[in-house]
Amino acid sequence: QFMLLRYNQRTDEYGGSLRNRVRLFQELIEDAKTAVGDTMAVVVRFAVDELRTDGLRFDEEGRDIVELLAELPDLWDVNIAEWENDSQTSRFAEEGYQEKYISFVKHVTTKPVVSVGRYTSPDRMVSLINGGVLDMIGAARPSIADPFLPKKIEEGRIEDIRECIGCNICVAWDILAAPMRCTQNPTKGEEWRKGWHPERIDKKASDSTVLIVGAGPAGLEAARALTQRGYEVTVAEARQELGGRVAMESRLPGLSAWSRVRDYRVFQLRQKANAQLYTSSKLGVNDILEMGAQHIVIATGACWRRDGVGRTHQAAVPGSLSDNVFSPDDIMGGQMVEGPVLIFDDDHYFMGGVLAEKLKSDGHAVTLVTPASKVSQWTEFTLEQKRIQARLIELNIDIVTDHSVVKVENDVVTVRCEYTGRNQQINVATVIMVTSRLPNDTLYFSLLAEPKQLQVAGIQTVKRIGDCYGPATIAAAVYEGHRYARELDEPFDNEIDFLRELTELSSEY
Amino acid sequence: QFMLLRYNQRTDEYGGSLRNRVRLFQELIEDAKTAVGDTMAVVVRFAVDELRTDGLRFDEEGRDIVELLAELPDLWDVNIAEWENDSQTSRFAEEGYQEKYISFVKHVTTKPVVSVGRYTSPDRMVSLINGGVLDMIGAARPSIADPFLPKKIEEGRIEDIRECIGCNICVAWDILAAPMRCTQNPTKGEEWRKGWHPERIDKKASDSTVLIVGAGPAGLEAARALTQRGYEVTVAEARQELGGRVAMESRLPGLSAWSRVRDYRVFQLRQKANAQLYTSSKLGVNDILEMGAQHIVIATGACWRRDGVGRTHQAAVPGSLSDNVFSPDDIMGGQMVEGPVLIFDDDHYFMGGVLAEKLKSDGHAVTLVTPASKVSQWTEFTLEQKRIQARLIELNIDIVTDHSVVKVENDVVTVRCEYTGRNQQINVATVIMVTSRLPNDTLYFSLLAEPKQLQVAGIQTVKRIGDCYGPATIAAAVYEGHRYARELDEPFDNEIDFLRELTELSSEY
Repeated sequence: QFMLLRYNQRTDEYGGSLRNRVRLFQELIEDAKTAVGDTMAVVVRFAVDELRTDGLRFDEEGRDIVELLAELPDLWDVNIAEWENDSQTSRFAEEGYQEKYISFVKHVTTKPVVSVGRYTSPDRMVSLINGGVLDMIGAARPSIADPFLPKKIEEGRIEDIRECIGCNICVAWDILAAPMRCTQNPTKGEEWRKGWHPERIDKKASDSTVLIVGAGPAGLEAARALTQRGYEVTVAEARQELGGRVAMESRLPGLSAWSRVRDYRVFQLRQKANAQLYTSSKLGVNDILEMGAQHIVIATGACWRRDGVGRTHQAAVPGSLSDNVFSPDDIMGGQMVEGPVLIFDDDHYFMGGVLAEKLKSDGHAVTLVTPASKVSQWTEFTLEQKRIQARLIELNIDIVTDHSVVKVENDVVTVRCEYTGRNQQINVATVIMVTSRLPNDTLYFSLLAEPKQLQVAGIQTVKRIGDCYGPATIAAAVYEGHRYARELDEPFDNEIDFLRELTELSSEY
Repeated sequence: QFMLLRYNQRTDEYGGSLRNRVRLFQELIEDAKTAVGDTMAVVVRFAVDELRTDGLRFDEEGRDIVELLAELPDLWDVNIAEWENDSQTSRFAEEGYQEKYISFVKHVTTKPVVSVGRYTSPDRMVSLINGGVLDMIGAARPSIADPFLPKKIEEGRIEDIRECIGCNICVAWDILAAPMRCTQNPTKGEEWRKGWHPERIDKKASDSTVLIVGAGPAGLEAARALTQRGYEVTVAEARQELGGRVAMESRLPGLSAWSRVRDYRVFQLRQKANAQLYTSSKLGVNDILEMGAQHIVIATGACWRRDGVGRTHQAAVPGSLSDNVFSPDDIMGGQMVEGPVLIFDDDHYFMGGVLAEKLKSDGHAVTLVTPASKVSQWTEFTLEQKRIQARLIELNIDIVTDHSVVKVENDVVTVRCEYTGRNQQINVATVIMVTSRLPNDTLYFSLLAEPKQLQVAGIQTVKRIGDCYGPATIAAAVYEGHRYARELDEPFDNEIDFLRELTELSSEY
């Protein structure tokens, strides 16, 4: 900011010309180099572009500044400014999205250069080094998803890399000041608290076999980690394809990278002799009793409600049983609808906004109604909110914030202002309720209702995991699948089974 | 919530009829009473009204529930539901605003009853007890403003009570998870950290005299606390009235209680022989040099900018020097304007919203433009945001969120969408910039420019406090005034001069 004309309004030798505005930065680097001498290198991180019309540009002063200081740092670490630009999600940016901005740097300095851009592909990394674009690849989110990324490249184990899906759940938990979570890496944030190593896991503690019903994120991760421990595992998926919700969600606009949650696990499982994967295999209680497994894991996911119940409404919205009211599952399942479409987003994460985008691209007029003041408000935590709302505005989607759907009467939807309680009416052909989800737990409770038969069948435990237990993020489902695998046959005798930082109150200055 | 029909959808003996829905609550109270026996009383807190059309009402099931459980608790603590209803600010509710809802309770139980309602007036409290409305007065915010409120009533020191102004700065700092602050009580949150007692303060450590320039919140509190310590203090105010910003702001719609910041301090100072208060006394450098004080405190406040510089703009908005562009100080100073009026609120606290209200009530068409997604967004921390936006909507004030003013050309204002950068134009007669403030620090720097003359005059220190040092809340100004008084002549040798809770990391389950 000190180097930017719009902030720096000094009239002394530190303001005015670019040379002057750069002076402080240059002196700081020089002083740091003098202070450390030959004992260490001095690295400079510098964002060469702000991605704003009145901001620093990589082809203007951004480049000029690097040229002025070219040989001064021992290493240049270059990127684009603002966290939401630097850490873009896969929904809005391809791998290597910073390359355009930073590729000039190697041409103006002989010092080594590092940059980032959610690089997960070893081929891409190699081509950047060989092509003289970078000397080192920076990878924060890809290392969260797989801390052994460099090691796996070194050992040629490319297919074992857990590729970052670019969802920014890591950023969200960071902002929320909670232990970090990662959709791909369930051990993230539990390395110290629970002693979970990202690659190593205890060998099995019995010869029990496990049947997992459902091959979504929770079921697949439970199966992967259980087979890593050495257990014999069978996974039965009712649908024709593996992946559960990520199979469906990754077909929505911009979310294709999410399929990596499935692909990584399915590949790993296919390498294992102790894993059996079945699709188109809907199991009932009797099927399960006959399978001969000692442990049953129900990972049958959740379904979006159609009745509008969620944050705002505790009871069904009047008219929500009409034929023209649908859920996200209906749309993801291929349901054709008539426009104009009204989406009621009382969920606030990605689904409402992404369905608006999809239905608009299907050719419908779309109105998005939300009781929040912003579209997809929760995505502020994934740094996506501004881009989502900008995209919806650019697509000419009607956005009605601060309102909730309170009634559906054929083609008339009544919405209520959250501030005043005033009603207004909107004419539509179709309503989509994006409000909340209900666990698919019928099978689980049907099994529990037959304790004797379970005993006769030799079944020792029946557990539900993932969205079937509590509908939440994909990351939470993967985590619960992994946790199940870690805890199978392990003694559990602590009420709080993780390390904590205990706060000591000491009265000191 | 368990007792409410809209949440409780049970079909067993805990759902359905009111009797059934109350059963769990009743059993919990009974079990608690059985468990504690005669060793202690069991108090029940119950919110009798939700202030929503589909919610619990004090004249329906709210009353029925109290009647059903009437003699069961040993004490009834009754109020209205939701923090933003229970803790309303003086801008939106008079003292005793809960009385209407809870006054029935004494009629249906023989047990003692307590309630709240920002009671600060001893007369009002007495009338509630004598009138059989309550047996005890609950006071949270009034006790934050003055922890010795009951003691002062007992001792008949009514005029010494520091009355809560109902601004909810206490709530804001609570939500912000920072040490609590109070506009009226600068020792709040520092009782342990700094050892500041709300009523006691060290005796003076020298016979120095102090000149305070400016009788706003900072200057008045510095004067009050310094005279409490025993120093001879002179306060010189340039304007005809005391109070600085609170004198002006308390004349805005709904903010009259804020004048208590001034009134409490002026009353206290008028009782002291060692305090001299002068109005209409604008001092220059020479005046100060001739006053003979050893310590000079500059508390000359701040002025709102007219040029639009603030969060969004680092440089003046083009056209902001036009004759039809004003600041909040202009409006509070009585400037007459022509409508329609556009207010650009880049500040987000109370000022933008309250000026919209005032100018509308003056008869003008008003448009409020803000880059935030909500009106007066920061007032979410004071629990006022929903009420402010509702009031502005009800007043038919045009609200343009997610936009910033970028240009003023006579009667055409260009506003830019924060998401897309798209411009649109609005025709107005007057623009009011509510963006940021600049310290009135000319006098301070003029004094510092004369070190020799200061020495000759026997002046030992010159300090600036309050908005003159850093424009902020009234609470911050009062705090800085108090801090000045505490620290005068005190040795200061710790870099961090308050107690801290030090976090000890210990690896335990």
